[in-house]
Amino acid sequence: MSEKRNAAIEFAHENQSRFLSELKEFIAIASISTDSAHKNEMLEAAEFVAVKLRAIGIKNVEVMSTPGHPIVYGEYQDAGPDADTMIVYGHYDVQPADPLDLWDSGPFEAEERDGYLFGRGSSDMKGQVLASLFALEAALQQGKLPVNLKFLIEGEEENSSPNLQPFLEKHKELLASDFALNPDSGMLGPDTPSITYSLRGLAYFEVTIQGPSQDLHSGLYGGTVRNPANELSRLIGGMHDDEGRVTLDGFYDTVRELSDEEREELARLPGSDEMLIEATGAPGPWGEAGFTNIERAGARPTLDVNGFISGYTGEGMKTVLPSKASAKISMRLVADQNPDDVHEQLVKYMETHANPGVTWEVDYMSSSPAAISDINSPAIQSLVKAMETVWGKRAIFNRGGGTIPVVAYMQQILGVESVLTGFSLNDDNIHSPNERLHLDTWYRGIDALIHFIYNLAE
Amino acid sequence: MSEKRNAAIEFAHENQSRFLSELKEFIAIASISTDSAHKNEMLEAAEFVAVKLRAIGIKNVEVMSTPGHPIVYGEYQDAGPDADTMIVYGHYDVQPADPLDLWDSGPFEAEERDGYLFGRGSSDMKGQVLASLFALEAALQQGKLPVNLKFLIEGEEENSSPNLQPFLEKHKELLASDFALNPDSGMLGPDTPSITYSLRGLAYFEVTIQGPSQDLHSGLYGGTVRNPANELSRLIGGMHDDEGRVTLDGFYDTVRELSDEEREELARLPGSDEMLIEATGAPGPWGEAGFTNIERAGARPTLDVNGFISGYTGEGMKTVLPSKASAKISMRLVADQNPDDVHEQLVKYMETHANPGVTWEVDYMSSSPAAISDINSPAIQSLVKAMETVWGKRAIFNRGGGTIPVVAYMQQILGVESVLTGFSLNDDNIHSPNERLHLDTWYRGIDALIHFIYNLAE
Repeated sequence: MSEKRNAAIEFAHENQSRFLSELKEFIAIASISTDSAHKNEMLEAAEFVAVKLRAIGIKNVEVMSTPGHPIVYGEYQDAGPDADTMIVYGHYDVQPADPLDLWDSGPFEAEERDGYLFGRGSSDMKGQVLASLFALEAALQQGKLPVNLKFLIEGEEENSSPNLQPFLEKHKELLASDFALNPDSGMLGPDTPSITYSLRGLAYFEVTIQGPSQDLHSGLYGGTVRNPANELSRLIGGMHDDEGRVTLDGFYDTVRELSDEEREELARLPGSDEMLIEATGAPGPWGEAGFTNIERAGARPTLDVNGFISGYTGEGMKTVLPSKASAKISMRLVADQNPDDVHEQLVKYMETHANPGVTWEVDYMSSSPAAISDINSPAIQSLVKAMETVWGKRAIFNRGGGTIPVVAYMQQILGVESVLTGFSLNDDNIHSPNERLHLDTWYRGIDALIHFIYNLAE
Repeated sequence: MSEKRNAAIEFAHENQSRFLSELKEFIAIASISTDSAHKNEMLEAAEFVAVKLRAIGIKNVEVMSTPGHPIVYGEYQDAGPDADTMIVYGHYDVQPADPLDLWDSGPFEAEERDGYLFGRGSSDMKGQVLASLFALEAALQQGKLPVNLKFLIEGEEENSSPNLQPFLEKHKELLASDFALNPDSGMLGPDTPSITYSLRGLAYFEVTIQGPSQDLHSGLYGGTVRNPANELSRLIGGMHDDEGRVTLDGFYDTVRELSDEEREELARLPGSDEMLIEATGAPGPWGEAGFTNIERAGARPTLDVNGFISGYTGEGMKTVLPSKASAKISMRLVADQNPDDVHEQLVKYMETHANPGVTWEVDYMSSSPAAISDINSPAIQSLVKAMETVWGKRAIFNRGGGTIPVVAYMQQILGVESVLTGFSLNDDNIHSPNERLHLDTWYRGIDALIHFIYNLAE
């Protein structure tokens, strides 16, 4: 394979300026999924992806409709029945561009400045989608690939992918694969190649406590009926112990503990108290005893109040005993916690700890399990090796604290682990004005993906 | 005195229809203190009171200016230096009348229907002010009274009396008295004469917890820095123990305990769990262990969250780790708690219990001490006897759970206890459309106040 590999890298280098032009064309399509005024651009962007897939030799390319924006599918089976199938995920939609006056150049007129390409979607993730396709194009130019391919390029990621889960369920067989490549992640720095191998899940609730049927005068009734705001506070207060652990019964029962190897890997990541204070403005760190900041953020489950409201919250005073109190409470979950179990644990907690004198309700608003990939899998090891070739150093393994639902869905529904990568940087201003893509990192990323493809054969 | 007493009662009965006409005239003056468009009516109402005082024989009547609406002063010294001086409190201002379309007759065109007089201020408290003045008029018609008088009729009670406390301090000597008559309270029912001998005080705070300098993504940072909403909840949760007692250190140290006599008195008041549930819509009663509902409402201090806000409180979900959380927290106080001590106790609680990783602030927004009058004082016993004469039954002693700042100020600044009474009923719609006064009760009230005056001599 080494001849093909070298030729593919050479092809990629020779075509860098064309790659950049194609990315500019893709950015020029204002495919804002949340804005119905951009429906035509959405179709245009899906078509752009389909055309590109066909052009590089992908078969059965189809713009498949959903109740929302379409999903672009395609496949490549020439590696033969004995080879693995990799499903390449991406999204062709972008965030809205406003406030427009904060952009230094038009969000949809991509402009190169200081080694960056500025434009909406340059980093998140039109640049990443095309990096994958350009790497595949370079490899396909050299003949048969060592891996079969499927493509799942959606148009609703910036709108919480409402139609993705049913689509995966409906087309489970069509999409059957061995692993996924998801370049919707980023690198810790231009010289710090990194691979995210785990994402936390989420279980989101609204807990409401009802006391009196209407707000009462706190003088006339204070001290005679239970105050729902005091009661909800007490209940929330009891959800952590002094060690920063969540007290819901059974919460940690299925938590997959970090291996020594993982802890060593995570220790390579920068995560000092000073950095955390600098990044958050909090007076100091906090978290579950016995874990580092990095481990707490990526490998341990949490319970946070996201919002709390009760009674009078305007200026000045009102001597009211509120009739109800409600809090949005969510847990970030890790493998192998089941959000539905957490729901049961929360309900059980309320049953056990809520006092008489009020009624309560738990609204289970959303859930997504955690996702985790084996860092010793051939796919991830192929990427590690590819990055080492390009950057001259071993990639850092990272655990993401947030949730990317598609990764969890693909693990749940298709049974595939994701290789999460991507060549965006933390200061790319994604979702903000002046979104940008660091071009050197991007070109290196294309090279790394080429190596990755050939490494899969070894 | 029994001849004078009988003659005064007779005078009052003969003049009932004139009394009613004068009340209608008083109601016709739309003296809404909170609405600057009614400034002229405020002066007119103050003048109405002054004219009436002079007409019944009160001396040195003066409409005294304040930075807000004026206070009407007057005095009667003919009882001589050996007699006590009673200061009569009242207010000539009324609540706004809107929503006007819910009134069945004009709020300022008092109308008699079904034994009631409908109109703004009929019950709260133009009717009560005139009941006192008519009783005094009837008595003064018969010659010298057994008690000296001073008058303090303000015009800002419906606007929280912002200028009353400085006025009392400034005119401490002029207003020096032995006890106060405050008819701004009511009766439990038309056949249930009652005397309020205690009011709770108030200490009102806003407690704010600051964590990160801005809202954070709960995925990226959840579990690594302290969540201010969780922390404030925990702190509030710890402010009560399982017995419903407030845990602030020293909170109960100065609380004046109920005497056996008071507990017996309060036990006469209707206060079953069923009534409380009916009145509040709460699923059940709650409160400090070892006390009845009535005792909890009037004789025991409380701590209530009046409002709590943090993070995202709109519809749906937002996975945010809030940067701050704040709660309005107030304590109803009883004799002999000092609001400033309670402030110190709260600050001490925060110092002791707030965790590192957040900063906090306690804003001391308002305070008023509790007020209490000796139920065995000659003044209160004179009223008990008067009510027994008129209603044929002994008055019920009641403790008010709310706060009437003037009662506390008069106790604090002038050193006088108040005889809190009045002839409004719970269903008089005060502060609401169709405010009304039950005329039979009002006429009986005038009689009772005449007896009260003569009883003071005994």
